Amino acid sequence: MTIQFEFDEKVVAIAQRTEKLVREEVLPVESEYSGSAHALPDGPRELLQRAAKESGVFAPHVSSEFGGLALDMRDRAPVFEAAGYSLFGPLALNCAAPDEGNMHLLERVATSAQRERFLRPLATGEWRSCFAMTEPAPGAGSDPSALATTAQRTSAGWVINGHKWFITGANGADFAIIMARTSGEPGDRGGATMFLVPTGTPGFTRTRDIDTLDESMFGGHSELTFDSLEVGDDAVLGEVDKGFDYAQVRLGPARMTHCMRWLGSARRAADIAIDRANERRAFGGRLGELGMVQQLIADNEIDIEASRALILRACWELDSGESGAQITSITKTFVAEAVNRVVDRALQVCGALGISGDAPLSRLYREVRPFRIYDGPSETHRWAIAKRVLREAR
Amino acid sequence: MTIQFEFDEKVVAIAQRTEKLVREEVLPVESEYSGSAHALPDGPRELLQRAAKESGVFAPHVSSEFGGLALDMRDRAPVFEAAGYSLFGPLALNCAAPDEGNMHLLERVATSAQRERFLRPLATGEWRSCFAMTEPAPGAGSDPSALATTAQRTSAGWVINGHKWFITGANGADFAIIMARTSGEPGDRGGATMFLVPTGTPGFTRTRDIDTLDESMFGGHSELTFDSLEVGDDAVLGEVDKGFDYAQVRLGPARMTHCMRWLGSARRAADIAIDRANERRAFGGRLGELGMVQQLIADNEIDIEASRALILRACWELDSGESGAQITSITKTFVAEAVNRVVDRALQVCGALGISGDAPLSRLYREVRPFRIYDGPSETHRWAIAKRVLREAR
Amino acid sequence: MTIQFEFDEKVVAIAQRTEKLVREEVLPVESEYSGSAHALPDGPRELLQRAAKESGVFAPHVSSEFGGLALDMRDRAPVFEAAGYSLFGPLALNCAAPDEGNMHLLERVATSAQRERFLRPLATGEWRSCFAMTEPAPGAGSDPSALATTAQRTSAGWVINGHKWFITGANGADFAIIMARTSGEPGDRGGATMFLVPTGTPGFTRTRDIDTLDESMFGGHSELTFDSLEVGDDAVLGEVDKGFDYAQVRLGPARMTHCMRWLGSARRAADIAIDRANERRAFGGRLGELGMVQQLIADNEIDIEASRALILRACWELDSGESGAQITSITKTFVAEAVNRVVDRALQVCGALGISGDAPLSRLYREVRPFRIYDGPSETHRWAIAKRVLREAR
Amino acid sequence: MTIQFEFDEKVVAIAQRTEKLVREEVLPVESEYSGSAHALPDGPRELLQRAAKESGVFAPHVSSEFGGLALDMRDRAPVFEAAGYSLFGPLALNCAAPDEGNMHLLERVATSAQRERFLRPLATGEWRSCFAMTEPAPGAGSDPSALATTAQRTSAGWVINGHKWFITGANGADFAIIMARTSGEPGDRGGATMFLVPTGTPGFTRTRDIDTLDESMFGGHSELTFDSLEVGDDAVLGEVDKGFDYAQVRLGPARMTHCMRWLGSARRAADIAIDRANERRAFGGRLGELGMVQQLIADNEIDIEASRALILRACWELDSGESGAQITSITKTFVAEAVNRVVDRALQVCGALGISGDAPLSRLYREVRPFRIYDGPSETHRWAIAKRVLREAR
Repeated sequence: MTIQFEFDEKVVAIAQRTEKLVREEVLPVESEYSGSAHALPDGPRELLQRAAKESGVFAPHVSSEFGGLALDMRDRAPVFEAAGYSLFGPLALNCAAPDEGNMHLLERVATSAQRERFLRPLATGEWRSCFAMTEPAPGAGSDPSALATTAQRTSAGWVINGHKWFITGANGADFAIIMARTSGEPGDRGGATMFLVPTGTPGFTRTRDIDTLDESMFGGHSELTFDSLEVGDDAVLGEVDKGFDYAQVRLGPARMTHCMRWLGSARRAADIAIDRANERRAFGGRLGELGMVQQLIADNEIDIEASRALILRACWELDSGESGAQITSITKTFVAEAVNRVVDRALQVCGALGISGDAPLSRLYREVRPFRIYDGPSETHRWAIAKRVLREAR
Repeated sequence: MTIQFEFDEKVVAIAQRTEKLVREEVLPVESEYSGSAHALPDGPRELLQRAAKESGVFAPHVSSEFGGLALDMRDRAPVFEAAGYSLFGPLALNCAAPDEGNMHLLERVATSAQRERFLRPLATGEWRSCFAMTEPAPGAGSDPSALATTAQRTSAGWVINGHKWFITGANGADFAIIMARTSGEPGDRGGATMFLVPTGTPGFTRTRDIDTLDESMFGGHSELTFDSLEVGDDAVLGEVDKGFDYAQVRLGPARMTHCMRWLGSARRAADIAIDRANERRAFGGRLGELGMVQQLIADNEIDIEASRALILRACWELDSGESGAQITSITKTFVAEAVNRVVDRALQVCGALGISGDAPLSRLYREVRPFRIYDGPSETHRWAIAKRVLREAR
Repeated sequence: MTIQFEFDEKVVAIAQRTEKLVREEVLPVESEYSGSAHALPDGPRELLQRAAKESGVFAPHVSSEFGGLALDMRDRAPVFEAAGYSLFGPLALNCAAPDEGNMHLLERVATSAQRERFLRPLATGEWRSCFAMTEPAPGAGSDPSALATTAQRTSAGWVINGHKWFITGANGADFAIIMARTSGEPGDRGGATMFLVPTGTPGFTRTRDIDTLDESMFGGHSELTFDSLEVGDDAVLGEVDKGFDYAQVRLGPARMTHCMRWLGSARRAADIAIDRANERRAFGGRLGELGMVQQLIADNEIDIEASRALILRACWELDSGESGAQITSITKTFVAEAVNRVVDRALQVCGALGISGDAPLSRLYREVRPFRIYDGPSETHRWAIAKRVLREAR
Repeated sequence: MTIQFEFDEKVVAIAQRTEKLVREEVLPVESEYSGSAHALPDGPRELLQRAAKESGVFAPHVSSEFGGLALDMRDRAPVFEAAGYSLFGPLALNCAAPDEGNMHLLERVATSAQRERFLRPLATGEWRSCFAMTEPAPGAGSDPSALATTAQRTSAGWVINGHKWFITGANGADFAIIMARTSGEPGDRGGATMFLVPTGTPGFTRTRDIDTLDESMFGGHSELTFDSLEVGDDAVLGEVDKGFDYAQVRLGPARMTHCMRWLGSARRAADIAIDRANERRAFGGRLGELGMVQQLIADNEIDIEASRALILRACWELDSGESGAQITSITKTFVAEAVNRVVDRALQVCGALGISGDAPLSRLYREVRPFRIYDGPSETHRWAIAKRVLREAR
């Protein structure tokens, strides 16, 4: 047993096939839709997923029971990064947010019947899903305990009332995992339950699709209203009142897969800048011969390597069965900020070209910014990191 | 004679009227078009300019001979910042780029006949203009000496051939100021001439409007082709081969007015974050009671005050008749980066709301990024700043 | 009335004479003692002050009644910066901390008799003083309201008990201004009184001189104990229980003069780096031709110019009779951090030479770091800045 | 084969014994000498090394043939970090610079006779050594090819002439590894040879010990002069003209061990700040409850974890037999800057206490700064990183 950074041959092969798929099949589609998944019809999505299946890289995170490649967290890292090289790559591999995190959660928490009903079609790409937790102010945001949506017991099951927003992928989703309060008051650190609810259920309304800075997540981000939404007991995911615990089960790994995918965006931006610096001439030489450009390019490499190393470190801890709360907070905060720095520097190297839609940098610039807010803003993570380390030292 | 930071009452009044105009008339129109001037028809522009005229704040930078308020550079600072509080404010006051810089240039360099023909309708808002200098690689970009567009002498005048891009406001412009090489080769630090050319002249083609990260400049950024574009001797602005000198005449002040307007964007973003921090509750208190949020808010104030002080310092030097090359480079670099930091922090304070189109932050985030590239990337300015200070010390 | 950045001729002349004095007289002495005032005997101090008197630049901040040049805050800026170019310059001009701030306070608050007794010998350089406010934990530090030293009324006057530390200049001081609690409890935001106390008074003990990162303040930083220290009613400076208000009177201007002096250190560090970049050859050219070195040098100029502009802006507000609480907090925070960045970059440009004692950079590196803590840590200022701006917006 | 972050039990045990040794034996000695090894006599050094031998943690990097623990690069990471927790820890374990790097080099390049003569006493701690490469301007500094010291062939061997500075550990060293030019001119990227020379050899003069910002390296940094220094052929280390290649053999691992040791300093500074934040009360609560303090503490954890992950990543590559040029440059640059940030933040958390010598932070602040210059300034590494990545992409 010692420190080891070498991937199994099988994993290397999957990553390489993913790279090839992205280069040959995915990037052209992305380019056609200017990287906006909001504008992407179902057709191309199906086409891309078929290509991924043919390449043998579909659903890398799913167990073989449900048709996936059963990669552990560490082994997902190079594959998801390769997928993330295109904004549409994760969609092709069916490992995009929020479906990917939902599959992870269902594998761990759902009953066998729920898995057959919800996980199986999700894992094959037949269905899509969403995760309905975030609420507009003063509800659950950075502070999940503010959860205001309620599920009240009835003789027949539960009735859910509430208001959600920024629910990624809700447009077109077949079902939602809804987080609702089954006990306590907003502000209490417990009392939440998760429900599996088909989006066609009466009382489930998608009130609007939110216009957002980022546009690469399939289905976008929507606002939902639950108005006396009735569900049976079989809709309960896991146990009643344990919703916040399950959110943690989902969040740790979901944070890391977010990091992996977005790191792909960073790598791509860095590559575009490198190519530009090699080609563009200014001030009597290649752009890449100018010291300040070299600094931007070197700092990109530093940020990318540090991100990769941290992701593997955190994934190893998750794979070891630890909660990984501290290391995933650390990694998510670092990688989200590093990815933003990388894309910003790449855009700067490319100048006006970077600002234009002729390079994908202006799109990437928009896509990566929310990452410092989604899955917990950097400030919330820093607060949690400091609290843990201070508590341990006392 | 001593250090003085107090504005004349008259200027204070103009700035206050501008604030009122922006709040009551301009922001509603901006909101209606989501801050995208690419989508803005001529109607609202005329309406806004009429309102500015009625408020007595129209054309603050133009001499009284041409109907303006004749403010010097220092006095423009608070007025342009107030206008910049809305993305459409500068358009309302007719002090938006590139028209504002072009008016400045025409007042200083044009003949009396050229001023009557081009400056007068520009100053009233009847006409619009563009400044055709930047070229796609390997032409004039960060390095203006790479200028590749040529103007060749003919018996009747000049014939211009070349390719420009990122020409702001070209869509809808009535005339262009074209920078073309009249002697020397790309790479030579001289030999450029400016020409005043109506956009309807045969051989002048707008080949496309470029899709860009920013969208708040009226008319957007276009690509132009000059194909045997024939102009007379009276099209020459100033003297032949002095184009690079005139570009400097235009650039120093234009840099500062860019800073002023964009600082308005920063102030607005900071204000939105402050309001959010006062209203939003999280973790058992107001957002604004959290130390990390306070830090973001305090740093915004620091960046804004430092930007304001530097702008005034640079404007004083320009008003004193100096070239201000060093101080305007320093100020532009600092302010462009400070404005980006401010908007980024404000967005972070607002979380998901900041990412959504419900607050204007996601729009502002897109609008301010190019400022670190337009009018010379930060790297080019730093290079120039260091070279000057190293040379002086030798 | 308009924005004006030109100094009066008289002030320019004082600044130039100060530059000359520093270059010819002060820097050699600084070099002899490696910039450590802890090791500096009284002799050189007297010699330097005599030279400053002969140059007509002594006590620039003191009223003419007490033999000074009566410069207002704005006019002090270039003179104090010129003095600060050497670590011993402020000592030469008798405008070093804490004496300078104490003179300022005495001019505003002391009775006529107190001014004759304490201010006059301080202003001539015959005496030295200290300001005894800061206490070790859990007493008054970043949070002055934690003040624990007490002064109790007796029939004959007051008896002071307490423990102070980081009292700059106490070693060798002739008197101290002691801040003690005359009412309330530690944590209360009032109830402090200032006392003028000769250091030879029984019960006043200097228990140790603290070893510190910085060493350029004459007399260093000491720990003091007051053990039944008896003083008369004439020792009270101003009114009883108004000590915290007077601390503000002292602090605003003292913050700015700190900024001015330390900016002199930054300018000097930047100059050393510029000279090195011009002289040193590496990689086939001058160091100053390398882009990353140019970036360090340019960023120094940007930080210095922004600092200067902010200092003048804040001083103008103080000279206008305002409290300047917000703008001096903003300026102090920015300048303290900017000065640290400048010295750090300069050291980096100089490489091993910068690390060695052969250049004064390693000394400057040590001297400027505490500035981000002294006179309120950056965090305390940011907290105050944010609180004010949030309160105003409500 | 997969990603693995778990150390072998044996290594964990060595690291734990090192922690215990440092806490119980080394820190008290460090404290006695205020962390300055310049002032450290031989006695305490011998005492510490004896204690390390008794703890079974002496010479962890040395092969068992020469009495060490034979840890590979990865396994050194936790042990060297634990040693680096005290400035004197590496000295105790005999793994301080420059001896540690020299042992590494001798194991790989020296003849069997040279190993017996030079390596054996070095590995036991009986001898000390130095590495004489760096020269004052215009000689070998950031740019090693500027090497100006010459070794000329004679009938009997070689005669060396030259001038070195910043030669760490030269004071008290028993022998030096001297880098001298045996062919070509300063500026040529080849032609260097390494020589093993006892410091008592005639012509070898230590002209002065340089006063430096850092003081924790045993023997300090000295200036050397070689004046017709005669050595035999058996003094040649490895092959003639291959000195630059061997410098690379030494540098990659030496960079990483530097990172490990200095990371120990960062961890210690972070711990001091955490303790202070837990104990110190201000503004009505614990310091550690303030958001801005939490941010400083969280950022320290982030920097430390990213540094650790990168170090292991780089060491794995070195252990795999790769040159690791790119990843060690990336890691050295990141870690050097991260360590500086950590110490700076820790000092800020501790306020005046941090500035004083009462906590070791002011000492640590001085010790870590040179790390951004030693073993190649960050700028040189960034230049190399960018060049490699640009070249690969072409």
